[in-house]
Amino acid sequence: MVERRNLPLIDGQRLWDSLMASGRIGPGEAGGLRRVALSDADGEMRDLYRRWCEEAGLTVIVDAMGSMFARRAGREDDLPPVLIGSHLDTQVAGGKYDGILGVLGGLEILRTLNDRGIETRRPIEVVNWTNEEGARFNPPMVASGVFAGVFERDWALAREDDEGAVFGEELKRLGYAGEAPVGAREVDCYFELHIEQDDALERLDIPLGIVTGGYAARGFNIRFEGETAHTGPTPMAKRRNALAAAARVLAAVDDIGWKYAPEGKATAARCVAWPNRLGILSEWAEITIDFRHPDPAVTAKMVAEGMAALEGAAEKTRVDYEIVQRWSFGDEMFSEDLIDLVRGAAEALDVPTHDMFSQAGHDAYYMSRITPTCLLFSPCRDGITHNEAEEIELSYTEPAVNVLLHAVLARADR
Amino acid sequence: MVERRNLPLIDGQRLWDSLMASGRIGPGEAGGLRRVALSDADGEMRDLYRRWCEEAGLTVIVDAMGSMFARRAGREDDLPPVLIGSHLDTQVAGGKYDGILGVLGGLEILRTLNDRGIETRRPIEVVNWTNEEGARFNPPMVASGVFAGVFERDWALAREDDEGAVFGEELKRLGYAGEAPVGAREVDCYFELHIEQDDALERLDIPLGIVTGGYAARGFNIRFEGETAHTGPTPMAKRRNALAAAARVLAAVDDIGWKYAPEGKATAARCVAWPNRLGILSEWAEITIDFRHPDPAVTAKMVAEGMAALEGAAEKTRVDYEIVQRWSFGDEMFSEDLIDLVRGAAEALDVPTHDMFSQAGHDAYYMSRITPTCLLFSPCRDGITHNEAEEIELSYTEPAVNVLLHAVLARADR
Repeated sequence: MVERRNLPLIDGQRLWDSLMASGRIGPGEAGGLRRVALSDADGEMRDLYRRWCEEAGLTVIVDAMGSMFARRAGREDDLPPVLIGSHLDTQVAGGKYDGILGVLGGLEILRTLNDRGIETRRPIEVVNWTNEEGARFNPPMVASGVFAGVFERDWALAREDDEGAVFGEELKRLGYAGEAPVGAREVDCYFELHIEQDDALERLDIPLGIVTGGYAARGFNIRFEGETAHTGPTPMAKRRNALAAAARVLAAVDDIGWKYAPEGKATAARCVAWPNRLGILSEWAEITIDFRHPDPAVTAKMVAEGMAALEGAAEKTRVDYEIVQRWSFGDEMFSEDLIDLVRGAAEALDVPTHDMFSQAGHDAYYMSRITPTCLLFSPCRDGITHNEAEEIELSYTEPAVNVLLHAVLARADR
Repeated sequence: MVERRNLPLIDGQRLWDSLMASGRIGPGEAGGLRRVALSDADGEMRDLYRRWCEEAGLTVIVDAMGSMFARRAGREDDLPPVLIGSHLDTQVAGGKYDGILGVLGGLEILRTLNDRGIETRRPIEVVNWTNEEGARFNPPMVASGVFAGVFERDWALAREDDEGAVFGEELKRLGYAGEAPVGAREVDCYFELHIEQDDALERLDIPLGIVTGGYAARGFNIRFEGETAHTGPTPMAKRRNALAAAARVLAAVDDIGWKYAPEGKATAARCVAWPNRLGILSEWAEITIDFRHPDPAVTAKMVAEGMAALEGAAEKTRVDYEIVQRWSFGDEMFSEDLIDLVRGAAEALDVPTHDMFSQAGHDAYYMSRITPTCLLFSPCRDGITHNEAEEIELSYTEPAVNVLLHAVLARADR
């Protein structure tokens, strides 16, 4: 439990200044950020984060996936560290807070401990996970996934972007192919603070969401193999148009989302095809789809309907298909112990809280598989995220960072 | 009428050798060609064609759209020329004969006239139209379209490929931004010989198809404007996913094709979207669709159903759309006079013929709007085209080229 005492608080303006400094690196076209993983802009932000950490007296450890751990020593420095973190990469048309708040909020917590000369029993580390968004390299949350043993390291390092650039090579290019092994060490626990990405907290006027569970999400990359032929003379019954198969599945997925709305969501996320031209039927197409619902049993039903639509589309269009990749997250459980610590800290600071489910994927999902994990939300304006118009104010998030500070302190000193 | 006399015939082996020489320029991956308009390979083929023409004593005129007219003078050289032609460009995974036969067959006819020392009253020209396929620059048949006054020259020269390369600049780069005005001169008539692109002639064992009409084809480029948002938390009712709108229309178009099969065809030809990524809804998407039926009234019904599906998809997904471009071809009429000449030549040469409709677009469609036009087909194996496996044999096409020779001679001497 966090005791009511002369409670240290973060320097909100310093946190805000850091967020604004980050918000100038990799500008988008409409006030937000375009700082996809391992781009030049991501490299520039990483350099700045490293400098900030070193100026705060922290030791920066980079692992082989490029994840950056800024470590503040504990009195008993051999104990596993309390880990705080999120990610500094963004979507191609993303906001200035998604993920970034979790990293820079963690850094602000360590800066505050420095200011106050507070030592902790356990070390504390703030991590920037590489490529959480998956906007450049698929899948998302890949570095925390490797850390948690969900993905193979070498497989992850071999991922390619749309232009054929390789994850591992891009890490080397930017100087972030670190030497530390990925995972393979014990961490005491993991805290992640994130903007909510919906408008529930703003509507309730509550500054702290405690995530007690997640939407069960299931995703698929599917490849279709058809055959090129002339658009004009080739009759429907002789066609094997991979793009037609892809479109049929994407449309069916959108229908499934509507069928299970408002809680259910299904997404036609991506479609590429070749030759994808006027006058010729497409030889191949690839799509990305996903299904989400708070109840894993319902998500399973949505997936089953999606797979039936896939079968039907392939048969109708005489196109072959292969499920190239599938992923699953969201129904991991968060730690009751950590949640209790957060509730205690919030009470001590008079910060109202709201229990909620997470709808989006977060690094916390994979981390929860290997260590006690706690995911916290603070409000975002109008629930707009993955959009350059994403916006918060300092007052939206300062209470949550202070609660996190005290929960982390309590955990690090136990 | 063509009179039975000591009839000159083409040198089939020379035609075949020319086709095979062309078939080595811009090889695809599976035995066919990848020689899209104004690529380096297209430039190399153009240079070879120019050399062949000059070696045959022809004058090569290049117009501002890059179309190449190889001219053989007539005794009355001021008379409008008889024009023969087609195109040397291919699809990205195309064959060695589509279009190419029409140009090289025309050249073989002029070479044959040279061999026999035959003079004609009117000049004869063999044209290679730029970018018939539209595989790189949309729309297809753009250079014959400008020649026929269907498109504006400056608009056509400003077309961009997917990488932003500009049609007019690519012409300059390859040295084919010619000085001759586009169109603006009278031509006596236009003959085009093409492979059939279906298997009717092969099944009937008839070496010459006389095209008496075309499938009415209507095409559309449509752009959807939605909004990026996070895939996870954004409920279906708040989404404006441009890719979902695009997929719904493409799937509906495929359904319309099936509804009007076997004569009707509707094609989901192209889809691009942005950001087109996992985790984010797409802000915009663009699609290309088309509808074809031998009866223009039925094509109109198919289009109406497609437009209704477009309206419905846009409403369902809350996405805006714009029809960026539309095109129409196929129901132009061909010249009875020219067809009579062809029938006469075929009879004189004992070549059986079959009257048929064209299902694909051809430069002849636009030319028919400004001059008497005749479109002829010779068989292709299994009806496979716009595919690297496209195949013919010399015996499939030699009779058609000989008939064309005599029809051209009769027309040029009238």
